[in-house]
Amino acid sequence: MKIGYIGLGKMGKNMVLRLLEKGIEVVAWNRSPEPRQEVKEKGATVTETVEELMSSLDTPRIIWLMLPAGEATDELINKITPLLSRGDLVIDGANAFYKDTIRRGKAFESLGVNYMDIGVSGGPDGARNGACLMVGGSEDDYNKILPIVEAASAPNAYGHFGPLGCGHFAKMVHNGIEYGMMEAIAEGASVLKHSGLNMDLVKVFDVYNNQSVISSRLVEWAKNALIEDAELLDISDKIAASGEGEWTVDTAKELELDVPIIEKSYQIRIDSKNSTESSKNSFRNKVVSAMRGQFGHHDVKIKQ
Amino acid sequence: MKIGYIGLGKMGKNMVLRLLEKGIEVVAWNRSPEPRQEVKEKGATVTETVEELMSSLDTPRIIWLMLPAGEATDELINKITPLLSRGDLVIDGANAFYKDTIRRGKAFESLGVNYMDIGVSGGPDGARNGACLMVGGSEDDYNKILPIVEAASAPNAYGHFGPLGCGHFAKMVHNGIEYGMMEAIAEGASVLKHSGLNMDLVKVFDVYNNQSVISSRLVEWAKNALIEDAELLDISDKIAASGEGEWTVDTAKELELDVPIIEKSYQIRIDSKNSTESSKNSFRNKVVSAMRGQFGHHDVKIKQ
Repeated sequence: MKIGYIGLGKMGKNMVLRLLEKGIEVVAWNRSPEPRQEVKEKGATVTETVEELMSSLDTPRIIWLMLPAGEATDELINKITPLLSRGDLVIDGANAFYKDTIRRGKAFESLGVNYMDIGVSGGPDGARNGACLMVGGSEDDYNKILPIVEAASAPNAYGHFGPLGCGHFAKMVHNGIEYGMMEAIAEGASVLKHSGLNMDLVKVFDVYNNQSVISSRLVEWAKNALIEDAELLDISDKIAASGEGEWTVDTAKELELDVPIIEKSYQIRIDSKNSTESSKNSFRNKVVSAMRGQFGHHDVKIKQ
Repeated sequence: MKIGYIGLGKMGKNMVLRLLEKGIEVVAWNRSPEPRQEVKEKGATVTETVEELMSSLDTPRIIWLMLPAGEATDELINKITPLLSRGDLVIDGANAFYKDTIRRGKAFESLGVNYMDIGVSGGPDGARNGACLMVGGSEDDYNKILPIVEAASAPNAYGHFGPLGCGHFAKMVHNGIEYGMMEAIAEGASVLKHSGLNMDLVKVFDVYNNQSVISSRLVEWAKNALIEDAELLDISDKIAASGEGEWTVDTAKELELDVPIIEKSYQIRIDSKNSTESSKNSFRNKVVSAMRGQFGHHDVKIKQ
């Protein structure tokens, strides 16, 4: 099985390394050359240009896009569209908004190009060692790419959720849930921290993560961040937000559903941009940032 | 090692069965006779009255209380106080408010009776097969009861967090976090359910729980509830609240911390009492109830 892979960021590069290990042939391109070199050393064919990538694959091609959602994805799609042939299959593995995905799918459809969406969870470590994959697209296309899906994911950590858009929709909701869970954990950590009881938070979170009701990967990541620095001194209390939290809230509003927890968790991230390090909620916000750093390898250090 | 055990509800009965299996000698009493019979068949000594329990233990006694927090615990404590001897050790394993625990500890201290608090998480299945134990009390008392703690808990799923009150404080915060995590999961489930995309929620939650960032026991319990009934038709959308969510919010206010997620999650439970089954948020609330049913074996069915 052979695919073209465009975008070797934290997620893309690690997924390509995993695919290579699992025997998938990969032709890869990335704007900056450094990650190209890294995957080349592990057996990928790399190209200097995206045009070269397109011409070095036999039709019908399978192309996995792993770019920042939005403009970057649209730009790249505009660039490859004239180079695609009828029957080619393009997969968007980024955190795209499902309505963008459906819009792009319609444009591709008119050209006879197949399009799929795969939401990927688990962070760079998941991409490297087996991610969680949420797939949308036609049954035929799903069966076609199943060997790639199986290679990229942890054992059984994948599912075909329905037609185009379902993968990104499920990933959007996943990230909305993630926002709320992270805030709840951070609020608890803040109460423990400021309790005056002088409890060892690492010890508490270690026990929390062993057969308690809240045992979870996020509690484990919070613990690991606290092991690195119990005070989270170097961690920023400004919490970044990509887009999925906001999209989940907007989608819920369209569906006339109340999602106050996800909405507030998103709002806290936006408001945190104006917080000061001395704020009473600073530690709470740092805990959220620190978890993002742990699972997403995001840069969450205080900017000097 | 021998202990007196008072209170054989869902949690207490299961913990006694576990302790017996692990070689701890148990003298047990419960107001209603049915669970007494059950633990007797598995090797516990049971008594008809609490006075009989007290007189059948050599001093210094170790007594584990596992009663509903608040009045029931105070009543029982009033009853056994005249029967206690200097050097006896009383453990409260219920979800008591940590300030009540500290108050009770002071009263016991004046009598020369030692007092400890242990927050227990994991539901009845955890109590039966190894729970998560959060311990407060003196170092000496902790060392004294360590064989009991080890017998009751899953491997390494326990910790001594500090002096009296720390166990219940940590358990209170755990439950506050639990409230928020459950709401976040339920909001996501609601958006998926009403998306119009006709996704199989069991399939989605199964994938969510396999190496995604939100993988957790709560997501697993949500999935298991949906396997039993994807529509949650029999599940009530009125969500019960014990006390720990509210206490976490009150404690945060005292500490001048904002915990909007835990606060809103608690408020939603209170407001759900007035919801109607046809409410747009009904499914969301049912998901929370259903998770409570799964891990807590609470009765969450619609009352006829």
